[in-house]
Amino acid sequence: MKNKAIVLLSGGLDSTTTLAIAQKEGFEVYALSFDYGQRHKVELERAREIAQIFSVIDHQIMTIDLRQFGGSALTDSIDVPTHRDEKEMSAEIPITYVPARNTIFLSFCLAYAEVKNAKNIFLGVNAVDYSGYPDCRPEFIAAFETLANLATKAGVEGKEKLKIHTPLIQLTKAEIILKGFELGVDYSLTHSCYNPAENGAACGSCDSCLLRLKGFNDAGFEDPIEYRESS
Amino acid sequence: MKNKAIVLLSGGLDSTTTLAIAQKEGFEVYALSFDYGQRHKVELERAREIAQIFSVIDHQIMTIDLRQFGGSALTDSIDVPTHRDEKEMSAEIPITYVPARNTIFLSFCLAYAEVKNAKNIFLGVNAVDYSGYPDCRPEFIAAFETLANLATKAGVEGKEKLKIHTPLIQLTKAEIILKGFELGVDYSLTHSCYNPAENGAACGSCDSCLLRLKGFNDAGFEDPIEYRESS
Repeated sequence: MKNKAIVLLSGGLDSTTTLAIAQKEGFEVYALSFDYGQRHKVELERAREIAQIFSVIDHQIMTIDLRQFGGSALTDSIDVPTHRDEKEMSAEIPITYVPARNTIFLSFCLAYAEVKNAKNIFLGVNAVDYSGYPDCRPEFIAAFETLANLATKAGVEGKEKLKIHTPLIQLTKAEIILKGFELGVDYSLTHSCYNPAENGAACGSCDSCLLRLKGFNDAGFEDPIEYRESS
Repeated sequence: MKNKAIVLLSGGLDSTTTLAIAQKEGFEVYALSFDYGQRHKVELERAREIAQIFSVIDHQIMTIDLRQFGGSALTDSIDVPTHRDEKEMSAEIPITYVPARNTIFLSFCLAYAEVKNAKNIFLGVNAVDYSGYPDCRPEFIAAFETLANLATKAGVEGKEKLKIHTPLIQLTKAEIILKGFELGVDYSLTHSCYNPAENGAACGSCDSCLLRLKGFNDAGFEDPIEYRESS
């Protein structure tokens, strides 16, 4: 019997590559996505399509309204910053940071893992091109793993420990893309833009687009998705 | 200026006492409740009323559908166990355990705290009459506090640390009730039953009712709420 893994699937480049890695490692994948009031709903359509193409065992989309608290350009009407250089991106925690988002997402992964009796959670966070989010750092992930093993029935009963896998955490965007190509990932399915057009075309100028474009450029490939402005 | 605190308010005896303690300690209270598909929705009505009576600054009710994953008698159609003695209650983690519930609730408290710039979270968990839930133990709370300070902007920027307060964690139910009376808490407003009647009357036989009734008995007071069966 295959081991089960919960994969947090946003529909982006990183989480899709992570899903491919989890399957390659032999895990039975249960994918979890969130409808959290994000401005870029096209993400969810891509997540659905990707989950189907990868034939995951189950794909849950959990609705949570993070807009209720406010506080982020990804969920509020605050403008997403554009055309920032790497120095500007790394100078401070960006306005696109959603308060406690990964903590919340991982908590739901934990609940899903407990119900499915899965001992593995895969998360596509990255500490290289991580754009300044505090909850993408290795020490955050380690602290969550400790918490998870104290929070659950299995943890209390001293059974097999739950593990948080972050296979991309030390890779550059270019290395992630090369890894994905190696595993046959079709990146035309993925979506990264914080501020897409109505038709889903990426803006080409938000931090996420800039990191993605730089990654494809460094990897020596052309990004297969549509952009609405040249960058 | 008063310090701000997020109080997790279920509408039960413990969380209401915790709210009273936070106010007594001088905090400006922001209350957070969850509509999580619980069978006992009367809880939420009580939470609303309690938030109003205590004149909290803001009361948010966050909707999350934990039924989507399944796995608990509190959200599923599994029967709530009744008339168990203390030995039976403590023998194993009960079927009323909701997977990762406190991890999820605390994660939202963290998001709310970050948006409101609050450095304090109050939680009415209890390790004495805790009925076997893994996520009510002191080591779980300590691990969450560590996580919280790694997860947030403030944590990264090395500002004032976030603190999780659990003023009831070492008290018996009787001690909690006596503390509440000292602070003027009206326990007729609170609700504890896992399996209430349509009119909101408590069953008197689930673990939560039994612990509550024993607490009032040990404290030497009569429980002011309505029960549908004598116990």
